Amino acid sequence: MTERVVLAYSGGLDTSVAIGWIAEETGAEVIAVAGDVGQGGEDMEVIRQRALDCGAVESIVADMRDEFADEFCLPALQANALYMDRYPLVSALSRPLIVKHLVAAAKYHGASMVAHGCTGKGNDQVRFEVGIGALGPDLQVLAPVRDSGMTRDKAIAFAEEKGLPIATTKKSPYSIDQNVWGRAVETGFLEDIWNGPIEDVYEYTQDPTTPREADEVTIGFTAGVPTSIDGKPVTVLQAIEQLNARAGAQGVGRLDMVEDRLVGIKSREVYEAPGAIALITAHQELENVTIERDLARFKRTVGQRWAELVYDGLWFSPLKKALDAFVAESQQHVTGEIRLALHGGRAVATGRRSEASLYDFNLATYDTGDTFDQGLAKGFVQLWGMPSKLAAARDQRLGS
Amino acid sequence: MTERVVLAYSGGLDTSVAIGWIAEETGAEVIAVAGDVGQGGEDMEVIRQRALDCGAVESIVADMRDEFADEFCLPALQANALYMDRYPLVSALSRPLIVKHLVAAAKYHGASMVAHGCTGKGNDQVRFEVGIGALGPDLQVLAPVRDSGMTRDKAIAFAEEKGLPIATTKKSPYSIDQNVWGRAVETGFLEDIWNGPIEDVYEYTQDPTTPREADEVTIGFTAGVPTSIDGKPVTVLQAIEQLNARAGAQGVGRLDMVEDRLVGIKSREVYEAPGAIALITAHQELENVTIERDLARFKRTVGQRWAELVYDGLWFSPLKKALDAFVAESQQHVTGEIRLALHGGRAVATGRRSEASLYDFNLATYDTGDTFDQGLAKGFVQLWGMPSKLAAARDQRLGS
Amino acid sequence: MTERVVLAYSGGLDTSVAIGWIAEETGAEVIAVAGDVGQGGEDMEVIRQRALDCGAVESIVADMRDEFADEFCLPALQANALYMDRYPLVSALSRPLIVKHLVAAAKYHGASMVAHGCTGKGNDQVRFEVGIGALGPDLQVLAPVRDSGMTRDKAIAFAEEKGLPIATTKKSPYSIDQNVWGRAVETGFLEDIWNGPIEDVYEYTQDPTTPREADEVTIGFTAGVPTSIDGKPVTVLQAIEQLNARAGAQGVGRLDMVEDRLVGIKSREVYEAPGAIALITAHQELENVTIERDLARFKRTVGQRWAELVYDGLWFSPLKKALDAFVAESQQHVTGEIRLALHGGRAVATGRRSEASLYDFNLATYDTGDTFDQGLAKGFVQLWGMPSKLAAARDQRLGS
Amino acid sequence: MTERVVLAYSGGLDTSVAIGWIAEETGAEVIAVAGDVGQGGEDMEVIRQRALDCGAVESIVADMRDEFADEFCLPALQANALYMDRYPLVSALSRPLIVKHLVAAAKYHGASMVAHGCTGKGNDQVRFEVGIGALGPDLQVLAPVRDSGMTRDKAIAFAEEKGLPIATTKKSPYSIDQNVWGRAVETGFLEDIWNGPIEDVYEYTQDPTTPREADEVTIGFTAGVPTSIDGKPVTVLQAIEQLNARAGAQGVGRLDMVEDRLVGIKSREVYEAPGAIALITAHQELENVTIERDLARFKRTVGQRWAELVYDGLWFSPLKKALDAFVAESQQHVTGEIRLALHGGRAVATGRRSEASLYDFNLATYDTGDTFDQGLAKGFVQLWGMPSKLAAARDQRLGS
Repeated sequence: MTERVVLAYSGGLDTSVAIGWIAEETGAEVIAVAGDVGQGGEDMEVIRQRALDCGAVESIVADMRDEFADEFCLPALQANALYMDRYPLVSALSRPLIVKHLVAAAKYHGASMVAHGCTGKGNDQVRFEVGIGALGPDLQVLAPVRDSGMTRDKAIAFAEEKGLPIATTKKSPYSIDQNVWGRAVETGFLEDIWNGPIEDVYEYTQDPTTPREADEVTIGFTAGVPTSIDGKPVTVLQAIEQLNARAGAQGVGRLDMVEDRLVGIKSREVYEAPGAIALITAHQELENVTIERDLARFKRTVGQRWAELVYDGLWFSPLKKALDAFVAESQQHVTGEIRLALHGGRAVATGRRSEASLYDFNLATYDTGDTFDQGLAKGFVQLWGMPSKLAAARDQRLGS
Repeated sequence: MTERVVLAYSGGLDTSVAIGWIAEETGAEVIAVAGDVGQGGEDMEVIRQRALDCGAVESIVADMRDEFADEFCLPALQANALYMDRYPLVSALSRPLIVKHLVAAAKYHGASMVAHGCTGKGNDQVRFEVGIGALGPDLQVLAPVRDSGMTRDKAIAFAEEKGLPIATTKKSPYSIDQNVWGRAVETGFLEDIWNGPIEDVYEYTQDPTTPREADEVTIGFTAGVPTSIDGKPVTVLQAIEQLNARAGAQGVGRLDMVEDRLVGIKSREVYEAPGAIALITAHQELENVTIERDLARFKRTVGQRWAELVYDGLWFSPLKKALDAFVAESQQHVTGEIRLALHGGRAVATGRRSEASLYDFNLATYDTGDTFDQGLAKGFVQLWGMPSKLAAARDQRLGS
Repeated sequence: MTERVVLAYSGGLDTSVAIGWIAEETGAEVIAVAGDVGQGGEDMEVIRQRALDCGAVESIVADMRDEFADEFCLPALQANALYMDRYPLVSALSRPLIVKHLVAAAKYHGASMVAHGCTGKGNDQVRFEVGIGALGPDLQVLAPVRDSGMTRDKAIAFAEEKGLPIATTKKSPYSIDQNVWGRAVETGFLEDIWNGPIEDVYEYTQDPTTPREADEVTIGFTAGVPTSIDGKPVTVLQAIEQLNARAGAQGVGRLDMVEDRLVGIKSREVYEAPGAIALITAHQELENVTIERDLARFKRTVGQRWAELVYDGLWFSPLKKALDAFVAESQQHVTGEIRLALHGGRAVATGRRSEASLYDFNLATYDTGDTFDQGLAKGFVQLWGMPSKLAAARDQRLGS
Repeated sequence: MTERVVLAYSGGLDTSVAIGWIAEETGAEVIAVAGDVGQGGEDMEVIRQRALDCGAVESIVADMRDEFADEFCLPALQANALYMDRYPLVSALSRPLIVKHLVAAAKYHGASMVAHGCTGKGNDQVRFEVGIGALGPDLQVLAPVRDSGMTRDKAIAFAEEKGLPIATTKKSPYSIDQNVWGRAVETGFLEDIWNGPIEDVYEYTQDPTTPREADEVTIGFTAGVPTSIDGKPVTVLQAIEQLNARAGAQGVGRLDMVEDRLVGIKSREVYEAPGAIALITAHQELENVTIERDLARFKRTVGQRWAELVYDGLWFSPLKKALDAFVAESQQHVTGEIRLALHGGRAVATGRRSEASLYDFNLATYDTGDTFDQGLAKGFVQLWGMPSKLAAARDQRLGS
């Protein structure tokens, strides 16, 4: 029987060429798999047909948007996952989802290989290959761009030689990846890190400096899941989409940073993630109200490690699962509403209410009704400071 | 010899009354110590005289602004210290400075007691008392507001009865603490956490929603110390002051949060810290460019712990000193310039340049000149993913 | 209705006196609750009757041994919980169990108060009171020894005056707490930390320096739970008891340390915990075989924090629950057998076998059959070292 | 000019063959560098001559023992560095030392390449290459065993063909690496992880099960540095050597574990490190007496990360330097004496005394002279438990 390869297909030049390239190189049949993760752009049916036109024996497209929102974006939101305190892991979240579908297709169609179109200096190759290794440890991985010399120039030559139905001329000056959780832009003049981004690189967000009316939105969460916008029930996907629209219209969620890639180099990245940033901002503030102090403090470390792991391609790792268990337990009472002001590029929490609140007005108030027993403080302060005091007395005794 | 008490004196009603209150209660002489930490307001000489008029036997005022900037704000900046990822530790930084001066005054004037005017439900009592315990382990602490019933009503009655030269009528609806690093506002209608702050509560920042021209500033750092603004040399204090003015004019640095106090309760706090937020933003981005990945990742944990310790009143603790040594070592190469756009409440890094940069254009570029050897990637990816792959294969073998 | 107090009753002098002391002080009826947590010593029925003889209106005794083993010792084992890398949390584990029963008894019997006999400088007062606060936030806590002057001398006088059926003469030179997980000894000549412990202080362990035959035991675990000893099925309690006997006979599990108490002081503690140390040793080694590297590394931090929290009286805290979720997830594949050599005070793993092993002979061997592809290593090493190399090159370039 | 290669030379078969192998392969001159790190065995002069006899143009041997003890073992001791809570990093510490000398020799002799004899599945290749990359970023690395097919069989054939003065017949069944800090043994029948080690594999330690007299030793430290043994001044090297002898004679320091290698696999390792384990045990207990609680807790995390970094070949990394700064600061008061009982494979602290002690007898004692104010405890306990109590009350209110 002819061997089969499942290819992560985007519809673009590289992976369109890869269909024929892999077929020639391996003699195998190529099955293309493409998914809608909210990236917009071409119709999925057009993409499906193009793969067939380029020589795929099967072409599968799937609407993965709800799955992406529920199983990949939501855990990131609950972890408040921001790599390097900034980046909400746009591409890092979609890769394991695609891996899941690639491996499922490989099993269904009896393929022994899986292929991707990533280069050898980015993070995505790691996310694809480590993910495939985890879900399909017996599958062989092909990376024609990285391992068999399928450069852009050769890809164009191949496409023209074979007459593939894909444009080979116009090329964006940027390298772009986008999905419903956000959009990443790199290369071009941004590789000079002293250059600021220009308005031209953005698509999900309006210019925050344009004067406009502020927007105000109330986001409701139930056990850490966004479940309502301004009182109307939403799915996770709808929450992200509606906030992409509303926060994006106010210029919220633009990021410009120098980032540590897993492969050991620093790169310049520009992101826009209006919905993600608005949701994380609201979620963090609701946690401030409903999560106990020690748990909140340790959860920061957990969230940071979670973001590093996912950024580093370890979505399917045992540590990731155990951190997920921690985060899931922490979300039990993250229920309530946060009012956000959206304006001028900022999403700011201005109000919070929750049945599960740990904020106790009577303990907090300096007004009448104060129930806090200040007589407890003296003993607390003295024992709290005892270790420092003993150490300081020792230091003085020893003259240091 | 008559015993002596050194009192942390602010010039306000509570500590003015405390002079006489403590004298009556203890029979001791009271020495008032007040410091300029950039809080603005009354002239320090006026404050000095008022303490004497209220019965102090000595009244000391000092300009502590440069010391505050160099020894307290700067370490916080280098640690990127943001309690709960938000709050740049405004009050928590000034307390240990004041403690230092109180204890020095106690030693100089032969006092056996130190007094403060804090209540029993806030963090500042801890910062004062633990700090005093560390620097002057033999000093006794007096806290008349907390421990001997000096309520606001009794303080007013006392002031009127004694004819103290201090206004007892008008009272701000808010409780405010401010210094050059920022300003904290609490109580009043903000104790209802669903209420948003109104423009009235802010002093350091203009309304970010007002349309105005953007400002652009280039901040230079040398080994983690801000040393120039737009190319002109500055002291740390000048850097903070100039950025307070320029970032404040753009509405940068407003914060509104529910916060975990050390004494075990949650409280609502509103802050404004335009200079601090602008400096931390710039410093973080320069670290992204100049600090190696593993160090950067661990430094986040260190910075978080640093902020918790300082918030919790443990400025003088042994752990704080060891974390300081870590941070100091990390700053060696944090040298370069960051260009910030200030506008509409946002401070955004748009450019970075540094002789000490670890960003390597030739390794990062996708253009001609790329020196990254993609042939290394395959081996890296496979061994990187090996533990996850082995675990996944095990899980599949065991059917879990 | 007369108020009721539930008292944590041990059968000893202090808590026997406390029955009458509390009754006199509060006018309330006292209900004594005592539990068998494997401490040995007197018959529980004798203890039950003594409480009644001392004036309790109800006296409840319960065999809590299996509950203690399954719900308190087992999570500690799975976390490899060793406070300060040494102490397996003997007393810290039994307090929350007793709290659970005290609060249940208070609810059942309509008591509004709970009492304990702890002093004010130990950890146990914290464990009792914080636990009671968590499970019964409305219950009032009484601590007669700490808060109402019930010193040892006064207790003896009270007992003699009232003719209580409890010996008041002989007093151990040590303060002892023991349960099935271990035994703690303090005070007496051990308070001089230069003194070594003498054989006299030990009960659970034989002198390790006595020559004797070594013992070898194979402990089987299923998903992190000890389920067999030398191939015979055991409950968790039986595993602990059998290993207490066998490891104790070899002198395993003696500990002598200076320890950081939560109340801010250091104390000298001597422990013996033969079963706990043998089980943790075996469990750690089985984790080495079955848990993936990154998970194992992070789990050390989790285990350390878990031990600190439980030591610090925060068994019922939200963070403890979330850490439990992490640990539980990590145990899924901790299944297999560990052979331990027990001899001369040492428990040493000498063999391990597991269906869930991640040790792969063919990848590990240097012999024929090696399947490790060494060709992958070069790329891995180079990218692994890239960040350090770039940083070092920068440092050299800048001459630092 | 002929190119030059500096080779890490051990005197054994592999690196003796590598001299000629590399010369043939590259046409370069080979400079052999060997160091005495306390591994014992052959005379260094014999080793020096053998390299020349095998074709090296230069052969350098150096006594690196004091440098190894002072600059590599001592920081490990101060960090209490135990990889996976067990392994004191024997080989991981010597590699960066050798790298330092290799790079120095390369600079001195104008070599452009450095070579090592490691395989592609161990940790040492990483330690060599990452270290060389850090100290000599321009140097090229050769790894003939890994990269150019120099298998054991080919090495023997090469040696016989060239008539190299090195035995090719007898081969230890084990792979061994040893230095003054310890000794590592692997492969052979130990690759079956159910097999226990036999007495035959050990050299540094006597059988702990043999009855013998116990030994007692008092180790003095000054600021974290071991400076006396039983009152007599020692260098760090002498401290390690003397304790290797005395603790080794009692069977202390044998380790048998399954370990996570950096290259992604688990391996079985047997170690013996009598001096290291005795020193770390004493150092930890002196830290328990002299280091404040919060610092001690955080230092555990630092020490764990330090051990991982050094194990993973990142000795010269920026994070390692920053962790060193933390550890150095923590050692300021780690001064005093620890009495250890050495017997039957155990090193147990039985006494501690220190001018810098934070143990305060008067605060700790339950006897007369107690200065601890128990009146402080109630307030402390209540505020300490407040967050848990509020969370528990919330949970009950919501019925969860």
